[in-house]
Amino acid sequence: MRMNIRHERISVLGLGAMGRALASALLEAGREVMVWNRTPGKAGDLVARGAREASSVAEAIGAGGLTVVCLLDDASVRETLAPAAPKLAGATLVNLTSGSVRQARELTTWLDEHGARLLAGGIMAVPPTIGTEGAFILYSGARDLFDRAAPVLAPLGRPHWVGEDPGFAALYDMAALSGMYGMSAGADHALTLVQAEGGDVEAFKREVLQPWMEQMLPFMVPDVGVHEAVPDEFNPAMQATGLENILAASGEAGAPTELGGHLRASLWRMRSAIR
Amino acid sequence: MRMNIRHERISVLGLGAMGRALASALLEAGREVMVWNRTPGKAGDLVARGAREASSVAEAIGAGGLTVVCLLDDASVRETLAPAAPKLAGATLVNLTSGSVRQARELTTWLDEHGARLLAGGIMAVPPTIGTEGAFILYSGARDLFDRAAPVLAPLGRPHWVGEDPGFAALYDMAALSGMYGMSAGADHALTLVQAEGGDVEAFKREVLQPWMEQMLPFMVPDVGVHEAVPDEFNPAMQATGLENILAASGEAGAPTELGGHLRASLWRMRSAIR
Repeated sequence: MRMNIRHERISVLGLGAMGRALASALLEAGREVMVWNRTPGKAGDLVARGAREASSVAEAIGAGGLTVVCLLDDASVRETLAPAAPKLAGATLVNLTSGSVRQARELTTWLDEHGARLLAGGIMAVPPTIGTEGAFILYSGARDLFDRAAPVLAPLGRPHWVGEDPGFAALYDMAALSGMYGMSAGADHALTLVQAEGGDVEAFKREVLQPWMEQMLPFMVPDVGVHEAVPDEFNPAMQATGLENILAASGEAGAPTELGGHLRASLWRMRSAIR
Repeated sequence: MRMNIRHERISVLGLGAMGRALASALLEAGREVMVWNRTPGKAGDLVARGAREASSVAEAIGAGGLTVVCLLDDASVRETLAPAAPKLAGATLVNLTSGSVRQARELTTWLDEHGARLLAGGIMAVPPTIGTEGAFILYSGARDLFDRAAPVLAPLGRPHWVGEDPGFAALYDMAALSGMYGMSAGADHALTLVQAEGGDVEAFKREVLQPWMEQMLPFMVPDVGVHEAVPDEFNPAMQATGLENILAASGEAGAPTELGGHLRASLWRMRSAIR
């Protein structure tokens, strides 16, 4: 039986900033949405827009259709699902909670033991960009599950399947996050350094840092890493000198230098890869 | 007397990858270029394209016009200029060698004592992008010096003056570099993690990491740092959980975790800034 995607029921467990953004995008797309949150008082505006509020996790899961789980961490997921275990048989859960590769694999096994199936997900967006053009969501798990769920979940962000291994969505998600954290740590270091030396932070950000990082991003992602040949023009001695200059300047300026620990190790690996 | 910019003489000291790219772009733009390198044998193709090779630093500086200095580090600059000190009076040097804020200030003082003027520069490009659209070069020092030199040096990359303080070009350059290094360290960590867990590194890079980092860059540069209000949707507890997930996954995968040292400290500063 072909389902009417537009009116398929979806439950959302967890109404933090991300869970609320998910429920909102699903409502916007005309889905029948049921919501649940551990502490009450978060569903008011969603209910005003047509969502129903479940009084228990079991009720939300039993409503039929997909159950999207978006909580703080894996421990919260386990605590939330445990009391509803007897109602899991036949259910399909989509876990969008951040977690590790191992946690995704273990949750799949646990749900399987209770007769439920898991599509593991990783959200490549922040709450304000959910449902916008750039947003995409990684999914891993059985391909048939993804094929069925993808059109239903599409309003959240472009669905992108990364493999049968339920851990891969978490793996790719966390790896991409670590790329983002590196970027943020670098920007943070840059602004701290300019501020410490009395530079014009606003002008620096707008006229130097942003265009420079945009220009350099394509060179960083494909060409750097221990995994492949480093391009001819990459000169590790020059880079190492540059890094020592930065650390010396940071020390002189009283700016933090802990970035150096990682960067020295990272440059050292690149250098080893060249030899 | 208004000079004929196109035919102004420029000397380039240092023919590493960057110095060669600079000399090449100047030749391409029709400048009269004289080159010098500490070890011989690097000037052949530049000479074939019309450059003259100086037999000494003093000869290069004495040729008239600007002298662009692009060497490994500040120590190399001092060693290179010292023997030519008696010939410095009246010269204008443009130092594009990477160095610290203090080094730029000290070099300005030293040159001043010898009757020469310094425009300090920081190259925001890699050798292959010199002279291309995205390339820009930061300059600091006397404004009149910049106004005179900028049109002559424009073929290297868009000239951008950042202040009278000769240290500011180095400051902004190094700060921007540290942003780039953070980005590179994050990407390196991401690829190492995916590879260690047996993921598809190429697909991850192309379909996840690159689009994700492009999408997130505008959020990283203006919104993160100890310098300003953190946006409402930034949830440090969630970020801290995300970071611990990454470090746990990295440890499980046998991937390096030294990125954590910096990121924990960086997140901690952001968290303090919110409270």
